[in-house]
Amino acid sequence: MNAELLTIGNEILIGQIVNTNSVWMAQQLNMIGVSIVHMSSVADDRDAILKAFDDASHRADIVLITGGLGPTKDDITKKTFCDYFDTQLVTDVNVLEDITEFFSKRNKQVSDLNKKQAEVPKGCFVIRNKNGTAPGMWMEKNNTIFVSMPGVPYEMQAILLDDVIPEIKKRYTLPFIYHKTILTQGIGESDLAELISDWEDGLAESKIGLAYLPSPGMVRLRLSCKGFDEMQLNNLIECEVEKVKPLIEKYIYGYEEYGKDQPKIEEILGNLLLEKGLKLGLAESCTGGYISHLITSVAGSSNYYNGCIVPYHNEFKNTLLKVDTSIFEKHGAVSKECVTAMVKETLITFKANVAIAVSGIAGPGGGTDEKPVGTTWIAVAYENKIIAKHFVFGHNRQRNIQMTATTAMNMLRKLILKIED
Amino acid sequence: MNAELLTIGNEILIGQIVNTNSVWMAQQLNMIGVSIVHMSSVADDRDAILKAFDDASHRADIVLITGGLGPTKDDITKKTFCDYFDTQLVTDVNVLEDITEFFSKRNKQVSDLNKKQAEVPKGCFVIRNKNGTAPGMWMEKNNTIFVSMPGVPYEMQAILLDDVIPEIKKRYTLPFIYHKTILTQGIGESDLAELISDWEDGLAESKIGLAYLPSPGMVRLRLSCKGFDEMQLNNLIECEVEKVKPLIEKYIYGYEEYGKDQPKIEEILGNLLLEKGLKLGLAESCTGGYISHLITSVAGSSNYYNGCIVPYHNEFKNTLLKVDTSIFEKHGAVSKECVTAMVKETLITFKANVAIAVSGIAGPGGGTDEKPVGTTWIAVAYENKIIAKHFVFGHNRQRNIQMTATTAMNMLRKLILKIED
Repeated sequence: MNAELLTIGNEILIGQIVNTNSVWMAQQLNMIGVSIVHMSSVADDRDAILKAFDDASHRADIVLITGGLGPTKDDITKKTFCDYFDTQLVTDVNVLEDITEFFSKRNKQVSDLNKKQAEVPKGCFVIRNKNGTAPGMWMEKNNTIFVSMPGVPYEMQAILLDDVIPEIKKRYTLPFIYHKTILTQGIGESDLAELISDWEDGLAESKIGLAYLPSPGMVRLRLSCKGFDEMQLNNLIECEVEKVKPLIEKYIYGYEEYGKDQPKIEEILGNLLLEKGLKLGLAESCTGGYISHLITSVAGSSNYYNGCIVPYHNEFKNTLLKVDTSIFEKHGAVSKECVTAMVKETLITFKANVAIAVSGIAGPGGGTDEKPVGTTWIAVAYENKIIAKHFVFGHNRQRNIQMTATTAMNMLRKLILKIED
Repeated sequence: MNAELLTIGNEILIGQIVNTNSVWMAQQLNMIGVSIVHMSSVADDRDAILKAFDDASHRADIVLITGGLGPTKDDITKKTFCDYFDTQLVTDVNVLEDITEFFSKRNKQVSDLNKKQAEVPKGCFVIRNKNGTAPGMWMEKNNTIFVSMPGVPYEMQAILLDDVIPEIKKRYTLPFIYHKTILTQGIGESDLAELISDWEDGLAESKIGLAYLPSPGMVRLRLSCKGFDEMQLNNLIECEVEKVKPLIEKYIYGYEEYGKDQPKIEEILGNLLLEKGLKLGLAESCTGGYISHLITSVAGSSNYYNGCIVPYHNEFKNTLLKVDTSIFEKHGAVSKECVTAMVKETLITFKANVAIAVSGIAGPGGGTDEKPVGTTWIAVAYENKIIAKHFVFGHNRQRNIQMTATTAMNMLRKLILKIED
């Protein structure tokens, strides 16, 4: 079964709001086995809406429409619906009652503009809105279903979950679209593709789809397949995951399971620290506190995180972390010697059993021929062992900060788990 | 001039990533007077792409395409381009050189997959990618321009700003869509609307549009109008800004001027510190390094930023920032006394003339009846003056961290500028 998502509203086209409704709807529909074939956004404009309806009817079994129903602009949208479905607007008494109650609960008068929100195309199936004033409307033409919903996210979400999805499930027998995502760090998209190319070639036979999803420092590998037997799909995918695992094991830091949120690397590291009863300390120069921010963005991180020092100048690497000034003279602050000294003192300062220290040239300034922008040293410490590594990331300051943070957290995770590089 | 935005990629249709590229592009194009008439997202699928191209060519003068160019999937996209433009793939020697250089700089081998990224439709105008391996491609058919760009945001952004927008400006005479945005902090959207409601009613006559753009702790007020005479538009808007300013002066921390990036509060504070020759030190408990991350996300921040201590447990507030343990016993760590002691010692530790210290309960755990989740104390110090303030933000951890950070930076800005609350 194919669905199309259509957003109506000038505010999307001028870039005033991010279209988060589409993402959320796509996730919900995918989960019940509905494929999205197209998404589009059009202006509050009769011709644009009519054209979009007509195009969608050739691609999809159901068209889910959001927006265009606010009290100041539903005029155009609802009149256009009437034109397309060859009908006229009538007042729905139930909706009018809902609207009246909505305002009386808030001690407010119902305006004429609000009363007009109770008008719906004659013959449509009305879906009452528990959280707002604009109702949902279910309409059909030539075997295509059109469902119009308000654009306010929590109003739309309740209508989709409570009314639209149950009705879809009643009418159609839907397959599962089963996913599992392998989370990798430390290898680029093309290198990863080369390592697993033989395995990927074999996937075609098993009807499993593969997607590469890159973000700074990481690539997620998504396996997906479609069918009616959840257990069988699960086995099929698990079997392929077991085959590909040995090829890329050292890059894998976790998995995203079907129906669950994608675990972040700071959550995976946090769980590991909690499980092992370890306490973490940080010393961040080039990342300027970003690793500390990621670690503490996880609720409950105070159970395994002790603190951080950001010595943004060498002077404070010396006074706060006892890095000998001779190291700056001989090797510079972006050096193995410097991050090693930093990580050692961080363990002591924060009474920690694990620590990370980073020093680098985030850019855009500060690079030299010998140490260009992007040059970074990372040290991690655990059980009397310190590993320090050298990286050259790139030119973009924000990206260098992100890459350093994810790489450092994964280095520590691997050291704790004794995973060799 | 009309533009259409087209995103290619299954990852959008299954709801795996939010389409932030479209919002950003819409904002940039609006700024130079280009109207977006349609946005759509299609799968990595030949027929879907061809249909989308054909539809777009009837609506728009220029079609801006993102995605579908990663090394593992550009096969379908680029072959489809060749079909649509009736041409074939050829290797672009300049792009191949760029790719080779990109990898050699990172001490990596160029794979065959990467080399294929240098293939482009014959006859297209190639836009070289300074930040990645997939080039931009400018193609034309029947008076419609099609520009294909990689989907990685910072690669696309550089191509759009440095190459595509200058070329559009060269070819078309565009109206100005003139904007000025007032940046406010410390007041909610509806309270702000009430303060300025009379002024807002008067705006309709002057054909100036007003938009409220809220984000955690801040609301941006955008005034916009369209026309060909930049000076006239500028005067019209400046006149309205002068009228509204006295009504909300104490909440304004800056302005976003036409054609310039929105200055972030960390940039505004950074510029002020640089201008006054001040050095900043931070002590962050509940924000866990987020303020330090924001400050250091600004290039050149090492000119005014000395460093940060994140004492995530009271023990380290005592050992690193000399907060007397009696303060924890008498007042708790989330108290005026604690942040005042922290900010005093931060000035000394980092040899700073200005400092911020924060301590709070970010949540979701840790709240009490007396100090619920969201309770936060912020202290700022400048010229022997320390101001400490108490806030209760809310229930959401991420939002509490963000609100604390923006509020703290604005408190310091106001203290330096001697702006009364």
